[in-house]
Amino acid sequence: MPEYKAPQRDMMFVLNDIINVSELAELPGFEDATPDIVQGVVDEAAKIIENTIAPLNETGDREGCRFDNGMVTAPAGFKEAYQLYSESGWTGLDKSIDFGGQGLPYTLATAVSDMLCAGNDAFSLYPGLTNGACEALMEHGSQELQDTYLEKLTTGEWTGTMCLTEPQAGSDLSQVRTRAIDQNDGTYLIEGTKIFITGGEHDFVDNIIHLVLARLPDAPAGVKGISMFVVPKFMVDSDGNPGARNPVVCASIEEKMGIHGSSTCVMSFENATGYLIGNANEGLRYMFTMMNLARLMVGLQGLGVAERATQGAIEYAKERKQATAINGGETIIHHPDVRRMLMTMKALTEGCRMVAYDTAKHYDISKAHPDESVRKTANDRVELMTPICKAFATDVGCEVASLGVLVLGGAGYIRESGMEQYIRDAKIFCIYEGTNTIQALDLVGRKMKMNLPQTFIKEMINDLAAESGNDELGFIVEPMQAALNLLDKTTQWLTAAALEDPQNPAATAVEYLTMYSLVTHGHFWIKAARAALAKQDDDFYKGKLATARFFTNKILPRIYGLAPVIMAGSESVMTAEEDWL
Amino acid sequence: MPEYKAPQRDMMFVLNDIINVSELAELPGFEDATPDIVQGVVDEAAKIIENTIAPLNETGDREGCRFDNGMVTAPAGFKEAYQLYSESGWTGLDKSIDFGGQGLPYTLATAVSDMLCAGNDAFSLYPGLTNGACEALMEHGSQELQDTYLEKLTTGEWTGTMCLTEPQAGSDLSQVRTRAIDQNDGTYLIEGTKIFITGGEHDFVDNIIHLVLARLPDAPAGVKGISMFVVPKFMVDSDGNPGARNPVVCASIEEKMGIHGSSTCVMSFENATGYLIGNANEGLRYMFTMMNLARLMVGLQGLGVAERATQGAIEYAKERKQATAINGGETIIHHPDVRRMLMTMKALTEGCRMVAYDTAKHYDISKAHPDESVRKTANDRVELMTPICKAFATDVGCEVASLGVLVLGGAGYIRESGMEQYIRDAKIFCIYEGTNTIQALDLVGRKMKMNLPQTFIKEMINDLAAESGNDELGFIVEPMQAALNLLDKTTQWLTAAALEDPQNPAATAVEYLTMYSLVTHGHFWIKAARAALAKQDDDFYKGKLATARFFTNKILPRIYGLAPVIMAGSESVMTAEEDWL
Repeated sequence: MPEYKAPQRDMMFVLNDIINVSELAELPGFEDATPDIVQGVVDEAAKIIENTIAPLNETGDREGCRFDNGMVTAPAGFKEAYQLYSESGWTGLDKSIDFGGQGLPYTLATAVSDMLCAGNDAFSLYPGLTNGACEALMEHGSQELQDTYLEKLTTGEWTGTMCLTEPQAGSDLSQVRTRAIDQNDGTYLIEGTKIFITGGEHDFVDNIIHLVLARLPDAPAGVKGISMFVVPKFMVDSDGNPGARNPVVCASIEEKMGIHGSSTCVMSFENATGYLIGNANEGLRYMFTMMNLARLMVGLQGLGVAERATQGAIEYAKERKQATAINGGETIIHHPDVRRMLMTMKALTEGCRMVAYDTAKHYDISKAHPDESVRKTANDRVELMTPICKAFATDVGCEVASLGVLVLGGAGYIRESGMEQYIRDAKIFCIYEGTNTIQALDLVGRKMKMNLPQTFIKEMINDLAAESGNDELGFIVEPMQAALNLLDKTTQWLTAAALEDPQNPAATAVEYLTMYSLVTHGHFWIKAARAALAKQDDDFYKGKLATARFFTNKILPRIYGLAPVIMAGSESVMTAEEDWL
Repeated sequence: MPEYKAPQRDMMFVLNDIINVSELAELPGFEDATPDIVQGVVDEAAKIIENTIAPLNETGDREGCRFDNGMVTAPAGFKEAYQLYSESGWTGLDKSIDFGGQGLPYTLATAVSDMLCAGNDAFSLYPGLTNGACEALMEHGSQELQDTYLEKLTTGEWTGTMCLTEPQAGSDLSQVRTRAIDQNDGTYLIEGTKIFITGGEHDFVDNIIHLVLARLPDAPAGVKGISMFVVPKFMVDSDGNPGARNPVVCASIEEKMGIHGSSTCVMSFENATGYLIGNANEGLRYMFTMMNLARLMVGLQGLGVAERATQGAIEYAKERKQATAINGGETIIHHPDVRRMLMTMKALTEGCRMVAYDTAKHYDISKAHPDESVRKTANDRVELMTPICKAFATDVGCEVASLGVLVLGGAGYIRESGMEQYIRDAKIFCIYEGTNTIQALDLVGRKMKMNLPQTFIKEMINDLAAESGNDELGFIVEPMQAALNLLDKTTQWLTAAALEDPQNPAATAVEYLTMYSLVTHGHFWIKAARAALAKQDDDFYKGKLATARFFTNKILPRIYGLAPVIMAGSESVMTAEEDWL
């Protein structure tokens, strides 16, 4: 198992040269986010993650979570690492200072999550889900609920969950059956079974706060009848401490392909006491407050696993000797196809980092900028990029993890190499928090109706025009002009085809999201190449420029295999009758 | 875990309508391969595989092989299933009647392997490796070695292995260090350690026959100094029975990502007694006799896992309800993106079956046809198709297994669904018996120097010309004309670029193999569409035609994303210096 080293050079490059993170310190409330603080946060987080959390990645996979009579024990070391992580203030980095957080930008939390996910994707889920619960309570909870729960969740003293899925209600939450009965004393009795609940039970903390989707007796059918409730594992007494046990119990945990260090629980709500968040029947909207952040986090899990696989593969390829390469090199890094795989891994991973950090910056602007129209524009960008950050980065996670095993060859298939774990861990990232199909349908559906993809295409075209006279950037600018034209044409086709038959976008959404993501990566690779050209003084920038060239020649052209598939529409997809399959 | 049902309808379609299997009965020695026998073989093999071997797939994965003090115990039921399988004559189906085989065509053995691999890929390795050992002994062993070993291997009473890999010698066999010392009594002492030895030790049979690559003291360096030896686990006494234990011991078994039912052994040869096969220093050539058949078999493993994942996903999608689809369908098979995934799985799987069976038929012709020039032409086709059968079908195995998990969503990530096992099993198929990179280098290297890809492109173009007036086939003929033109152009580019810089083909070989494979699939889909058009009398043929359309619109266009990547050559791949990564 390769050791994880935080890619601080690349992280700082993206923060400084790509997204200009220093601009965040100009936003009200983010004055503390000075360059020194940013560097300090990255340095300190890197230490705890490299030294304490990343080393538990392999052992966590091997040992897994244990279930015994309603109790779940995480793998050895997880509890202590979690306590160190939360007590050091990392869980509250971007949370409100009113509730014990540090009030720093989400962009910094994103940089920390990049490292945390790469260090230990299974571990990252415990604070990750808590994050979503915080956000939902912060946005929609009453003052009393906030006062009761937010500080404990912010500081990580307690953790949170999202209880959405039921056996019959996966992607289709309209089927949620968990019931909530108003006790007319400010509380509700919650009854039902939730599955696939990440962190539903574990041994890290004194209390676990479940955010639960359930249905009131008189609720309308479908998603318009879903309400959200807070259901604590232990009732909170008047001093704010855990008291009586609430009847919400873990019935079992799942045996999974990977992320064995994360407990995936069946949770049984046996007339447990809950508290309504916000208004009845508006739970789905509140859920999206958690869900949108969770989707960005899952994108970071994809980035994280890609980063770790890339590091492991490069390290191995620099050491392993196997036949002399054409260029005379003795290690396999000199073999052209190994190099192709490594460059693919590097280009995709670094591209995902640029998109993720840039989206995070727009998130901060959407929350903190004084000008409402600037906030709106930034929020539009976050809305557009959420499905892309989630789906494409997790597809990249799978592709890069798979290449990592191939670079190692037979050794990569053996568990002790550590590489095969990344394939096993990565697959779920494409599925949970909205499958990548759901992300793609969001992009070609709601987001396209809001004109968001179209608007950003125009922005990318305008950006490109500014570089049209730049000979040094010609290697990427010209291919990107062709790529943007094709994306524009494909988008127009899709818009028209959607009116003819809604099955057209539905059957081509996944390819369209991939195409859109590739061109978006190209947009950021221009920025990276521009920055690297200005500073070709060391190997890092030379490597960045070489990677931009590789992306342009070797990855961007994938769109030419996608566009005709998209523009073939849904007909040949849907022709076959069910019985013909 | 979905039950496996042998896809007999599709198998018989490929045997009869695509490759015209009845022609084989006209070859000398294959007179028995009448239509009745072919159908009977498929029917009977389907029974034993469906009923006895396939049900051990999941339990074999869970239980794995156990190692204890040099002994390996396969998962429960494997030994009994193996004995039933071999005693029923399946291991010797295509082996010489002189040594207890049934003398039927390899094409029939391929159809059986298709089912065996789908039923239980881990199990299939035990007879699979034995096959290769048989072939090497048959082609290159002395009469005495053949008399001693071949009948026992043919009947499956004993099993065989291929002992090639050492820790420092993976893809690069020039590094083999295992030593052989001539005892001047017809025997050699073999000393060294081999790793990743499939079936190196297990509890099925009374003897295991290792075919071992080793180096004589005076051997030339590199691959020209490798010899091949037979090393039995137990010495064979004068009655042909196992006698004294030979000091070749299993030192440990590997803990792997998948194929847990197959033992992957570290084998320690501690001055074990061996027998030279053929001439000294010609071991590499003999190895390829085993290896080429093993590569075709691994391709069938890819096909097998794809078939099983496809069956499981279709079954699930027909039952699972989740939101009403646009077309009003209540099960998820009606959701366009689910249908897209299922059709992709179906099209790729059926395409691999057509290519595999057709290659098998050419193998039989190359062995049995009375006319030498016909044998030579058929052998050329097998040479061309071996890397394609191996690499593309195993890439398909991984892609289809991955889609299978996505169709099931979160349920697919849970072990009890059985789907995630297919991802774990499939990955090794891309690696062993020559990584898919090695296959691709073989295609753009040796096979292109022999002009084989170019010749088959001309053949495909000629075949297409015969259909140019056929309106009903226009939907695939026209796209295939464009595809073949592009493949031709890309091939010409590659040939010229190879002369400029040998790194050009090396850096683009994998994409070229994929492109070549897709067009080859198109060639066979034309045949399938033609046959289906002639017989549109039931759902099977309607589905076949729909799948041909889907392939044409949705899979073939992938080549437009590959051609520009290939023709970008090696420059951007190799520019970066090692330290920039």
